[in-house]
Amino acid sequence: MAEPDWIAVDWGTSNLRAWGIGRDAEVMFSETSDRGMGRLAREDYPGVLMQLVAGHLAQDGASVDVIICGMAGARQGWLEVPYLATPTSLDDLLGKAVRPALSASRLSPRILPGLCQARPGAEDVMRGEETQLLGLTTLVPNFSGVVCMPGTHCKWVRLDGRRVEGFTSAMTGEVFEVLRLHSVLRHSFTGEPDPADRAQGLTDGLAAGLAAPDKLMTQLFRVRAASLLSDRQAGWCAGYLSGLLVGSEIGGQRDWIGSGGEIPLIGGEALAQIYAQGLAMAGVQSRRIDATDAVLAGLKAARSAGA
Amino acid sequence: MAEPDWIAVDWGTSNLRAWGIGRDAEVMFSETSDRGMGRLAREDYPGVLMQLVAGHLAQDGASVDVIICGMAGARQGWLEVPYLATPTSLDDLLGKAVRPALSASRLSPRILPGLCQARPGAEDVMRGEETQLLGLTTLVPNFSGVVCMPGTHCKWVRLDGRRVEGFTSAMTGEVFEVLRLHSVLRHSFTGEPDPADRAQGLTDGLAAGLAAPDKLMTQLFRVRAASLLSDRQAGWCAGYLSGLLVGSEIGGQRDWIGSGGEIPLIGGEALAQIYAQGLAMAGVQSRRIDATDAVLAGLKAARSAGA
Repeated sequence: MAEPDWIAVDWGTSNLRAWGIGRDAEVMFSETSDRGMGRLAREDYPGVLMQLVAGHLAQDGASVDVIICGMAGARQGWLEVPYLATPTSLDDLLGKAVRPALSASRLSPRILPGLCQARPGAEDVMRGEETQLLGLTTLVPNFSGVVCMPGTHCKWVRLDGRRVEGFTSAMTGEVFEVLRLHSVLRHSFTGEPDPADRAQGLTDGLAAGLAAPDKLMTQLFRVRAASLLSDRQAGWCAGYLSGLLVGSEIGGQRDWIGSGGEIPLIGGEALAQIYAQGLAMAGVQSRRIDATDAVLAGLKAARSAGA
Repeated sequence: MAEPDWIAVDWGTSNLRAWGIGRDAEVMFSETSDRGMGRLAREDYPGVLMQLVAGHLAQDGASVDVIICGMAGARQGWLEVPYLATPTSLDDLLGKAVRPALSASRLSPRILPGLCQARPGAEDVMRGEETQLLGLTTLVPNFSGVVCMPGTHCKWVRLDGRRVEGFTSAMTGEVFEVLRLHSVLRHSFTGEPDPADRAQGLTDGLAAGLAAPDKLMTQLFRVRAASLLSDRQAGWCAGYLSGLLVGSEIGGQRDWIGSGGEIPLIGGEALAQIYAQGLAMAGVQSRRIDATDAVLAGLKAARSAGA
């Protein structure tokens, strides 16, 4: 059996992914699992990791490096890894990694730190995105500027080469989910959404959010009122809510995006497309970098830097 | 048994209140129940109303008027009452009321309409607040200007005497609840909140929201980050979230409140106090009108106007 040189792991809140990496940095295997931090107790981690990769390793042999990023290093994770405080360089992620105990195993795991911003009034944290950012520096060499990372908690980052100057998290994705599921707006999302109707709602919502990001609290209720009064259907309402939230977020970040230059959007395709449309409506160009490509490139770069 | 001349009813989403009103407009009894619209099917309404007031009526006698405002007139209520479209006068609420069927009873109920704003892009609805607004015109004669009505869906209304020019609803109260219960921020609210700590968080949150109402999506996550990094406790976090949401709402309404003049705050004491503090920080004076006083005055005024 051809064994990997080392194993790269992205351990998030919802999912866990592992890649076996060969001597020439090629991916030899990849495994995914839904055993994210949210479903695990501290003592579950060693067994879950072993089970995920055991089929790709012989019983005996030399120790195999495992480089892990993400929520495995959170306080509720496998082993808490202290944050690096911004401004900070991404060169030292591996140097600040910690080693969880893993007895009677060929695996030699290290968990990379996340980043924090401790300044009172601008407190913020990230775990996992710092590795994607390091990946960006290898996928788009010499990039400096603002990066947008859409997700449950979208991160906006000021990057200068490998130096993270500062960042801020927008709860937009999570606010969309809790309003969709738990607020009075849920009554407006019944029925099968029509794609064209949804696209129109998205455009209308982006325009409304960009035009008045300070009026989000009053514009939200329009979702419900428009379905009661203007016969708006589930597709338009869902598109409008999504667009309104993202438009307000982008509209509130004008001091970040005003400086010009193409903004890298690191994220999944569907969500990144919404942000790309909103940024374009605000006069800003963007290019998407797949989040999986970025995290894998980042894990490779972290290991190279520390090797 | 001294019987009431008529019965005033405020039938909301969560609660139901009834007052027996005498010939001199005095309150002879009041009853409350948790049988709001949210817990009722259409066929439940007659029995719930009868049960609430039956003890105050003799078996036989003349028919007794019941004037009802609120969600009983909603599509999911007892009987849908068409909205009056703004701009509109509040003088004709009783004239546009509808009569639900109530056989074999001495009660003769009418449900008052709510208001809608049908203009595309500014769709909005209210049910119940229009009656509080009518009450305001008798409690504060000759008032014209902007009214703020804090609640689950806070209403901002432009009133010119008894004419409602327009209004907008802010989902602030509901957004607070869904984020507190269902988002990642819930982890920051464990433990007994300290009142002084909460007051400080409230002031900090109001200031943050007023300073940058367009940055709500990014400021929200600070609740979680501040508890992770700056050891903020449950009291501060809850106060900050509440203040941030209300401050953002008020900050986004500067085009409404800029014209000067004291703003009536119609609502419950605790929530109205938060709005009063936020308005004061924005340089605007306010006076609280109790929501129960306002709705009762409004139901009386509606019946007088139509008598």
